[in-house]
Amino acid sequence: MNKIHCLVWNEFVHEKSDANVARLYPNGIHGAIAQALEEDERFEVRTATLDSPEQGLDEATLAWADVVLWWGHTAHNLVKDEYVERLHRAITQRGVGLIPLHSGHMSKIFMRLMGTSCDLKWREIGESERIWVVEPSHPIVAGVPETFVLPHEEMYGERFDIPAPDEIILLSWFQGGNVFRSGCTWKRGAGRIFYFRPGHESLPSYYQSEVRQILRNGAAWAARQPGIPSTPYGHQPQPLEKVFPNKEES
Amino acid sequence: MNKIHCLVWNEFVHEKSDANVARLYPNGIHGAIAQALEEDERFEVRTATLDSPEQGLDEATLAWADVVLWWGHTAHNLVKDEYVERLHRAITQRGVGLIPLHSGHMSKIFMRLMGTSCDLKWREIGESERIWVVEPSHPIVAGVPETFVLPHEEMYGERFDIPAPDEIILLSWFQGGNVFRSGCTWKRGAGRIFYFRPGHESLPSYYQSEVRQILRNGAAWAARQPGIPSTPYGHQPQPLEKVFPNKEES
Amino acid sequence: MNKIHCLVWNEFVHEKSDANVARLYPNGIHGAIAQALEEDERFEVRTATLDSPEQGLDEATLAWADVVLWWGHTAHNLVKDEYVERLHRAITQRGVGLIPLHSGHMSKIFMRLMGTSCDLKWREIGESERIWVVEPSHPIVAGVPETFVLPHEEMYGERFDIPAPDEIILLSWFQGGNVFRSGCTWKRGAGRIFYFRPGHESLPSYYQSEVRQILRNGAAWAARQPGIPSTPYGHQPQPLEKVFPNKEES
Amino acid sequence: MNKIHCLVWNEFVHEKSDANVARLYPNGIHGAIAQALEEDERFEVRTATLDSPEQGLDEATLAWADVVLWWGHTAHNLVKDEYVERLHRAITQRGVGLIPLHSGHMSKIFMRLMGTSCDLKWREIGESERIWVVEPSHPIVAGVPETFVLPHEEMYGERFDIPAPDEIILLSWFQGGNVFRSGCTWKRGAGRIFYFRPGHESLPSYYQSEVRQILRNGAAWAARQPGIPSTPYGHQPQPLEKVFPNKEES
Repeated sequence: MNKIHCLVWNEFVHEKSDANVARLYPNGIHGAIAQALEEDERFEVRTATLDSPEQGLDEATLAWADVVLWWGHTAHNLVKDEYVERLHRAITQRGVGLIPLHSGHMSKIFMRLMGTSCDLKWREIGESERIWVVEPSHPIVAGVPETFVLPHEEMYGERFDIPAPDEIILLSWFQGGNVFRSGCTWKRGAGRIFYFRPGHESLPSYYQSEVRQILRNGAAWAARQPGIPSTPYGHQPQPLEKVFPNKEES
Repeated sequence: MNKIHCLVWNEFVHEKSDANVARLYPNGIHGAIAQALEEDERFEVRTATLDSPEQGLDEATLAWADVVLWWGHTAHNLVKDEYVERLHRAITQRGVGLIPLHSGHMSKIFMRLMGTSCDLKWREIGESERIWVVEPSHPIVAGVPETFVLPHEEMYGERFDIPAPDEIILLSWFQGGNVFRSGCTWKRGAGRIFYFRPGHESLPSYYQSEVRQILRNGAAWAARQPGIPSTPYGHQPQPLEKVFPNKEES
Repeated sequence: MNKIHCLVWNEFVHEKSDANVARLYPNGIHGAIAQALEEDERFEVRTATLDSPEQGLDEATLAWADVVLWWGHTAHNLVKDEYVERLHRAITQRGVGLIPLHSGHMSKIFMRLMGTSCDLKWREIGESERIWVVEPSHPIVAGVPETFVLPHEEMYGERFDIPAPDEIILLSWFQGGNVFRSGCTWKRGAGRIFYFRPGHESLPSYYQSEVRQILRNGAAWAARQPGIPSTPYGHQPQPLEKVFPNKEES
Repeated sequence: MNKIHCLVWNEFVHEKSDANVARLYPNGIHGAIAQALEEDERFEVRTATLDSPEQGLDEATLAWADVVLWWGHTAHNLVKDEYVERLHRAITQRGVGLIPLHSGHMSKIFMRLMGTSCDLKWREIGESERIWVVEPSHPIVAGVPETFVLPHEEMYGERFDIPAPDEIILLSWFQGGNVFRSGCTWKRGAGRIFYFRPGHESLPSYYQSEVRQILRNGAAWAARQPGIPSTPYGHQPQPLEKVFPNKEES
């Protein structure tokens, strides 16, 4: 069986400018996410960052990828529009999956796919987050407990300005009084998208077992399917069925 | 313009057996809900209870109603199956709306329409509930603030065993760590359904202004539409379009 | 009761370059659509075209509008990006409704809101289209028969590259063997969108009574709601509920 | 890797009373469906019929099954309510998948899960059916062409009285002027459901390659997931998070 090709993309900025983040994620946030994926033999994993050639979004890499996990925050605007459109085509036309993580809600690619501001409320006081599974039959939560706690997280709160998800799988409770749709899926063209809310750059959420399980499940779910039907668009001059010349309506 | 006919149905049991509930709702829970609706001139309101002839679900009453608001808790099983089926037909075949309230999540009619257990977690310690609007463009939340607090409520928590709603409009945060999909809509046949989570019989939630606004908005939204297209089912022997006798597929 | 302000926007190009279209729609396609709306006393109607100041999308006009009906085809690219973004803000932030009509599926504003190509198959041989109502309780089909025929229309066929609609209300059958999701709704931010498939510029679909009824129903459904809850985004430094300083998880 | 356990249930009545059906499906409709599944090494397949002990729905069989494919038509009412409830529990509580096929739309189990009449229009004149894929990224259509023709089928037409599906994957075009949502999914409790429209008992649809591919894909998609989170319902007396005794609302 062919392996699922996972590209972990990270802007890789906080880790180089903030000593605490660097200590927490010595191989970058992408390193921690890649490690979580590599625990599963189904996956083959590569990483890319803003510093990579063509910002890690070259045609060869996107042709290789079945799913892209995306972490970005402070450098969204540095990602070139040209590469965003390339990634958009890979997702919508070729079926590459996308998993925007945490602050990736404001990445150019996610906003481009959603058509809305993707804005939300946020607060950074180290409060706790409790996540609840609301769609237990979904493969993204296989092996995950019905509820688990991230002891300290950045708060993300509703109203989250997204299109109504195809599926809402996880809801978050925050100590300070907010709630959030923390695990959501959409389909766009041939591609599948899974937004997953954790984790903040200064907190160890990507080392927590439940989060890692969901990353693996999500990557498997969103990854490009083999055998996607081709659906040519545009002018189809010939009818598929015979058309009557002198049609009369009943 | 014709008025919208609202039938407020209440089992009317707690009010007769519990002095605290009686003090809180001296005209019954149905009385408080009816009063909230009557503040809006668009509505004409009637009430019915388990004690009414045919449990308040006689054919004439259901023919009159455009929407039924349903409060039940301890006496779900006393509602006769025959009347539940009658109400089911009124909803699915004639387009009467249904608004199950609070513990109405386990009413026979709601479970019949959903096809699932409609079960949930609950806790009664007087904790606070904070409700968030997540679909601000929906008419059910017109004039409602983005968030409001019920100072004390019974907790209802996920997993709420319902089919994925057509629309999720409200999410609740509970002090004790739970979340809930508190305002949800579905369509079933010709009818429209709005589940709304508050309020517990021993608490004054139905006197709170935001709750009353949502009751009014919900009744207007769920009420039977004039002009519902008739969609006859069953055998349709004649094709609508001419069928070729010797069809050849391309 | 305040009237619903409808802005009928039409590129108004075919009518000036094609004598057949001009004969069919002597007051422009926008004129025929406006006339359909004006049959309903709930509406106040204005029209705008590419030739209008600021292409008819000036701030004052968009502040006035509750819903915009959009017909475009050959001149999508002439609509200035700046005005598209202005319209996008009016829809998503202020709740103005949008009704893209027919070839408006490739308008900049619809593609911007959907995040996909919005492409489809098409064929122009004058075949018949039969439309079916699949969601009879929806107000958009109030008073519409369960099925009706457009004797000659341009074919639009699946795969229609749109996000899964919140609601699919109408399906089309085409004589030549194709099907299409012809009446679909989405919510985006504070705004509501209804895509409606007919009608081709060289055909009299906008004079057909069922089409006109759906235009009126759709405008009423999509129009900006009064009382949309304000949902401020961004930094919310203060928790809404008291946060424990030394929280311990169970 | 453990095999997916598929139970093919067929009432097995037409094959014994109608010589044409018997010639077409000498091993029963269940035999043809089982054969299609057995072409895939992932599956282990059993069959059951009305004649089996406990109508093939004994506890041991349902404990074994990961997914049940259901063909019924003339004998829906002979299936005992007690076994229908058993199957309902297996689906909603333990996550067994269900694939109602063709006339299985009126089976007790499907109607029970949907909460609606599941009625539709039908016609039996041997017209052709053309099926279109409208959700190409779905695993249920992997390897299936975007459109294919069943040369002769019974017509099923809208309005199909079902709850709005979670996903609409296939739409059908019928020669006589009708359309149908022919491939739909829902989740109910822990279980997943895929309705698939073909095939009529007197027609060879279950021998057609595209249909067989969809049966295999559907069985793999709907089958019980390992690791479904347990979600206990009912009274949860202890808060999960500490509750303030003297809470004051802002």
